[in-house]
Amino acid sequence: MKDRELALLTDMYELTMMQGYFEAGAHERQVVFDLFYRKNPSGNGYAIAAGLEQAIEYLQNLNFTKEDLEYLESLDIFGEDFIKYLKEFRFTGEVYAIPEGTIVFPHEPLLRVKAPIMEAQLIETALLNIINHQSLIATKASRVVWAALGDPVLEFGLRRAQGPDAGVLGARAAVIGGCCATSNMLTGKLYDVPVKGTHAHSWVMSFPDELTAFREYAKLFPRSCVFLVDTYSTLESGVPNAIKVFSEMRAAGIDLTGYGVRLDSGDLAYLSKRARIMLDEAGFKDALISASSDLDEHLISSLKLQGAKIDFWGVGTKLITGDDCPAFGGVYKLAAEEGRDGEFIPKIKLSNNIEKVTNPGIKKIFRIYDKQTGKIKADLIALIDEEIDETKPLEIRDSSAKWRNMRLKAGTYAVRELLEPVFINGALVYKSPKTMEIQAYCNQEKETLWGEHLRLNNPHIVPVDLTEKLARLKNELIDAMSVD
Amino acid sequence: MKDRELALLTDMYELTMMQGYFEAGAHERQVVFDLFYRKNPSGNGYAIAAGLEQAIEYLQNLNFTKEDLEYLESLDIFGEDFIKYLKEFRFTGEVYAIPEGTIVFPHEPLLRVKAPIMEAQLIETALLNIINHQSLIATKASRVVWAALGDPVLEFGLRRAQGPDAGVLGARAAVIGGCCATSNMLTGKLYDVPVKGTHAHSWVMSFPDELTAFREYAKLFPRSCVFLVDTYSTLESGVPNAIKVFSEMRAAGIDLTGYGVRLDSGDLAYLSKRARIMLDEAGFKDALISASSDLDEHLISSLKLQGAKIDFWGVGTKLITGDDCPAFGGVYKLAAEEGRDGEFIPKIKLSNNIEKVTNPGIKKIFRIYDKQTGKIKADLIALIDEEIDETKPLEIRDSSAKWRNMRLKAGTYAVRELLEPVFINGALVYKSPKTMEIQAYCNQEKETLWGEHLRLNNPHIVPVDLTEKLARLKNELIDAMSVD
Repeated sequence: MKDRELALLTDMYELTMMQGYFEAGAHERQVVFDLFYRKNPSGNGYAIAAGLEQAIEYLQNLNFTKEDLEYLESLDIFGEDFIKYLKEFRFTGEVYAIPEGTIVFPHEPLLRVKAPIMEAQLIETALLNIINHQSLIATKASRVVWAALGDPVLEFGLRRAQGPDAGVLGARAAVIGGCCATSNMLTGKLYDVPVKGTHAHSWVMSFPDELTAFREYAKLFPRSCVFLVDTYSTLESGVPNAIKVFSEMRAAGIDLTGYGVRLDSGDLAYLSKRARIMLDEAGFKDALISASSDLDEHLISSLKLQGAKIDFWGVGTKLITGDDCPAFGGVYKLAAEEGRDGEFIPKIKLSNNIEKVTNPGIKKIFRIYDKQTGKIKADLIALIDEEIDETKPLEIRDSSAKWRNMRLKAGTYAVRELLEPVFINGALVYKSPKTMEIQAYCNQEKETLWGEHLRLNNPHIVPVDLTEKLARLKNELIDAMSVD
Repeated sequence: MKDRELALLTDMYELTMMQGYFEAGAHERQVVFDLFYRKNPSGNGYAIAAGLEQAIEYLQNLNFTKEDLEYLESLDIFGEDFIKYLKEFRFTGEVYAIPEGTIVFPHEPLLRVKAPIMEAQLIETALLNIINHQSLIATKASRVVWAALGDPVLEFGLRRAQGPDAGVLGARAAVIGGCCATSNMLTGKLYDVPVKGTHAHSWVMSFPDELTAFREYAKLFPRSCVFLVDTYSTLESGVPNAIKVFSEMRAAGIDLTGYGVRLDSGDLAYLSKRARIMLDEAGFKDALISASSDLDEHLISSLKLQGAKIDFWGVGTKLITGDDCPAFGGVYKLAAEEGRDGEFIPKIKLSNNIEKVTNPGIKKIFRIYDKQTGKIKADLIALIDEEIDETKPLEIRDSSAKWRNMRLKAGTYAVRELLEPVFINGALVYKSPKTMEIQAYCNQEKETLWGEHLRLNNPHIVPVDLTEKLARLKNELIDAMSVD
């Protein structure tokens, strides 16, 4: 995002509303928006926040170029004064965010923006675009990696990604979610993550025969030599030729560490078991078998259950697109606005659907851990001025089922606030960790969930509740609205 | 793509193979690759080719920056000479392509690349990424627009798109596929397509009440004034307040053309019918009702069947992501390579799955039209040196069912070649039409299909066959391989 001109990466209605606020003289009025989502993708029990680094770059670079302004003028909708205002536009607001790689749950603000209404409104679309995309892919990657039960998972999806950014940033998010490497060289360069790749079918086809193709490849890349064995026939030709070349390499005294074969089609359970036997019998017990071929978390789970002998998983299309759930569904809702006296007035949006009624006011999130296990007990969404006194017992209300209220004894729980300052008065006060550091942090985060929360289907749900004070405010606002 | 540095937008194995060809001294050898797909997305009967303009920009800009080369060096896999070669890398090959907006079918080369193997290999991933993405979204848009039965469809998906490119280029592709406008300002600016948008719930919420919010909006944008009416209660509050403000505007002598209301939640069938009655009774028979809310082609079809009174359709998430089929599945396969004598040798890739066996040789595509109706009779994939003599009858073989062979009398059919020259010896010889021109062309293209081909479910399939000569070549190569 660094050198991109993205001020117009927004919906037209943001600009018409901005012009509206401008003309009404309301453009300096401060407002608070929450960026949150309502439902975990793919039936998951959690999501992984991702995309903050790019959101920061977007906000830092945000300004309208001469061409942007000429374009807006050409539409004949926007006033001269408004366009003049846009010329000087910079983001001057405040952003708090949950760090990338954090386990998050529905209704929690992943970002909280406090800014003049003009600014807060303009940035809605781009922030959602960036955070929605990467959180989606990081979460999907986490599912896939979970299914692989500790085996390394490689991200291979660039060619099927929805455009260059989806490939490059999607691979970044996949690494955050747990992939050990990507095939995407640009992601490797930009985000300093491991890249992997050997050869394609076209390599094999461009030689007179498969054996020659493998020999040539081995000559060039003796280190971590992996042959794609399914161009002609995996078991009749591919694996036997691979074994022939491995034998030649061993005879020549070449160190074979990290070598093996890749299966890219056919029945991966059967082929991997047969290939394993053939490799073992030829004395290549440490040869690795990697597999790719329209894999996702469910197929990997099934192959694991079937006892497939696969050491590495290459996952492409279904990871990089989110497949069964290709959108994250994050939204950006007004939570408070400045009144005449400078106080912030909490705002609520009603809906026929109770799940869609927003949480009003300027909020923060407390994460409550069980001290003994280190696992998350619950999250509490609170108003900004609330604190938890850890020397006292803590009551966590379950707003949907009161008989499930939890009472935690003092000393048995620990509290962490999730939202961290990112921009203060338009100045960046946050340093994004490196992508591999975010991955390491994300791996720790997963340790704070039980396996039952992490499983693919019908996971156990971590309770996310409102503090009593916030719940009371919400009910008051709902009542006040209904009276109108 | 114009100013983007995308040389590393590729899979690592492309670069390792390139180094392999380089070291083997084979890097000047010419090869031919076909970019094609195997299955229409979402069960559709056709696809719409899109993305060529961005593929062209990518190829034109293709060169490795100093940082790219430093990164490759840092990986400690690539040789010094190879890196030196990359420094001078430019695309010098030939590209033929089917123009954007063309109706296409499985197995037809959308692009045909003839280039030194190094070049042809490097560009595989980025070409697939770009063409796959836009062809997917153009095809999805075409389905959505078909379901709307002539009503205008607006693209609204930027916030849920998979990153900035997916939003910007996805909106471009959606317009090619038939959307009349987008909310995406950057797409509007870059591709000169109409942009649309009014206001969000936050506009309404930022005023003391809905009526004031509408009045303020009408003051600022009296032209084509559209109110979002579901912030509080569509029928109790939104529509009555809209009617009040429309009445005030009419009383003030304001021209109300293009005005109306937008429904964004709830039961759109019921709400639109009730809103229609309320608007009509108040004398606003020409007020437009637009609707959005997780729409896709199936929901629009259902609303049409239910007699919903919706004039404009805003489609977001499910269009911009492809939803039920978020990947196009295009592939890029070796079709021929230069032999020692400079002749091209056809190449084939076998597979257990007959659908996955590639079509060998340098090919072109004939589209056969019925002269009387102007509709497509069939497509014929042919070898490059084949011609069709339109003064003679034409036999079209159905390779899967011989009894369905077609024999067209001379004078009853017309022939068009689909692949057009784009790059010759690395020089661009093609001028991309403007996006709205592509849309107009695509609309004509849809006229060449019967409704039965265009329908959403179980469409009638246009036959795509091989010429006798190509079929014979394919069979010979399959036989030769099997003998090995």
